[in-house]
Amino acid sequence: MKTALSYNTKEKNQVIIITNDLEQLIKKSRIKNGTLFAYSLHTTLSLMIQEASEPNLCQDFIKQLKKIVDDDGRKYQHTCAKHPSGTCEEDKANGPSHVRQLITNQNLIIDIKNGKLNLGQWQDVALLELDGPRQGREIVIKIIKD
Amino acid sequence: MKTALSYNTKEKNQVIIITNDLEQLIKKSRIKNGTLFAYSLHTTLSLMIQEASEPNLCQDFIKQLKKIVDDDGRKYQHTCAKHPSGTCEEDKANGPSHVRQLITNQNLIIDIKNGKLNLGQWQDVALLELDGPRQGREIVIKIIKD
Amino acid sequence: MKTALSYNTKEKNQVIIITNDLEQLIKKSRIKNGTLFAYSLHTTLSLMIQEASEPNLCQDFIKQLKKIVDDDGRKYQHTCAKHPSGTCEEDKANGPSHVRQLITNQNLIIDIKNGKLNLGQWQDVALLELDGPRQGREIVIKIIKD
Repeated sequence: MKTALSYNTKEKNQVIIITNDLEQLIKKSRIKNGTLFAYSLHTTLSLMIQEASEPNLCQDFIKQLKKIVDDDGRKYQHTCAKHPSGTCEEDKANGPSHVRQLITNQNLIIDIKNGKLNLGQWQDVALLELDGPRQGREIVIKIIKD
Repeated sequence: MKTALSYNTKEKNQVIIITNDLEQLIKKSRIKNGTLFAYSLHTTLSLMIQEASEPNLCQDFIKQLKKIVDDDGRKYQHTCAKHPSGTCEEDKANGPSHVRQLITNQNLIIDIKNGKLNLGQWQDVALLELDGPRQGREIVIKIIKD
Repeated sequence: MKTALSYNTKEKNQVIIITNDLEQLIKKSRIKNGTLFAYSLHTTLSLMIQEASEPNLCQDFIKQLKKIVDDDGRKYQHTCAKHPSGTCEEDKANGPSHVRQLITNQNLIIDIKNGKLNLGQWQDVALLELDGPRQGREIVIKIIKD
C-alpha cells in the first residue's frame, strides 16, 4: 500500500503527532504484520519518533534547534535575491529551517505488529515543522506486508 | 524474519558495537542476500554506523554531543514536575538526552551480501546510549530476503 | 535490484546531486513502481534530500556544520597517533568530519512512481562529502518492486 498524508501547520516550528493517522492507514490496508516506511516531501519538514506527547519536551526541541542552528536567516547565503530560479518576491530567509532539517531525521522505519505500530512506551511518531505555517505538508507512506 | 535485541547499558553515554550480534541473526535467518532494517524502541537511544571500533572517536562523539546540545537539564522545560503523566518521583532532567536522539539517526538500512552485512572498511553498527545506565534497551530488527 | 554508485569528490566539503544517477538506475531496473533504499559506505559521507540545486544553500550547509561541530580536529581524541590499528602515517585529524556524519542522515528511503523518484518540488538527492577530496566514495542502492 502506497499513500500520502497531508497536514496544514499553524506555527513556525510545530510538532504534530501522527501515530493515530498512521494506524488508521494500517487498519485500512488490512496488513497485520509488515513494515511501514515514510519520508517527508519537504526540505524544511522532518519526521521523528519521540516523546511527542510531552508538550514541554516539544518546546525544548524547538528551543534547542534554535540554539544549535543560528536563527538569524540574514546571515545565510540562501536568500531570495540570490536564488537560481531568478524570481524574488518575498525573502523568507529560511536557511536556518533547511539546516535544521539536515540535522534531524527525514525518514521512518517502523515494524507493524498485530495491526499496530511496534513502538516503545514513550515513542510517538510526529512531524517536525521547521518553516511554517504552511499548507499541504505531505509525507509519503508505504506499508509492506511481511 | 522479525526480532529484537536487548542490551543493558552501564554508562550515561555509551557506544555498544552490535555488528556481530546482527550477523548472528542473519546466520540464523539463513538469508544470504537481503536487507536488514532496524530501529530503536527508545527516545534516548540512537543507532549509528560509524568507526565505533576506535574508542577515542567514541569519546569524541559523546564529548561533542555534550557541546552541541546544552548539557544542563535544569534549563529544559522537560522536567518530572511538569510531566503530563502527573507522576513525579525522581527528576532525571533528561531533556538533553532527548535532543541528542533527535539530531542523530534512529534507524538503519543495510544490505546483506553473502550472509554478511555489506559495510564499508571503517563501518561498524552501534547503539548510542544517550541516557544510561538502563536495563533492556531494545532495537527491532527485520531481515528481508531479496 | 542491488547496485552501488561510486563518486570522486574534489573538495573537503562538497554536495553532489545524484538524483539523475538514481533515476538512470531505476530506468535500467525497469521497475515502474517500487521503493529505493540507499546508504553510505563511509563514516564521513552522508546522504541528504534537500534543495541541493541552490548552491548558496549548499554553502550554508557546510558553513553551519562547521559552526555546529567544532572544526579544530586537534581538539579531538581521534588522532592517528592513538588509532588502535597502530599505524600512523599522516594525521588527518578528521574527528569533526565523523561527528558531522553522526548528526546528518546516512540512509534514504524514496518511493518510485511511474519510473521516477517521488520527490517534492524542492527536493534533490545528494551526497554530502564531509572529509574529501576522496576517490571512490560509494553508496549502496536497492530498488525493490512494490
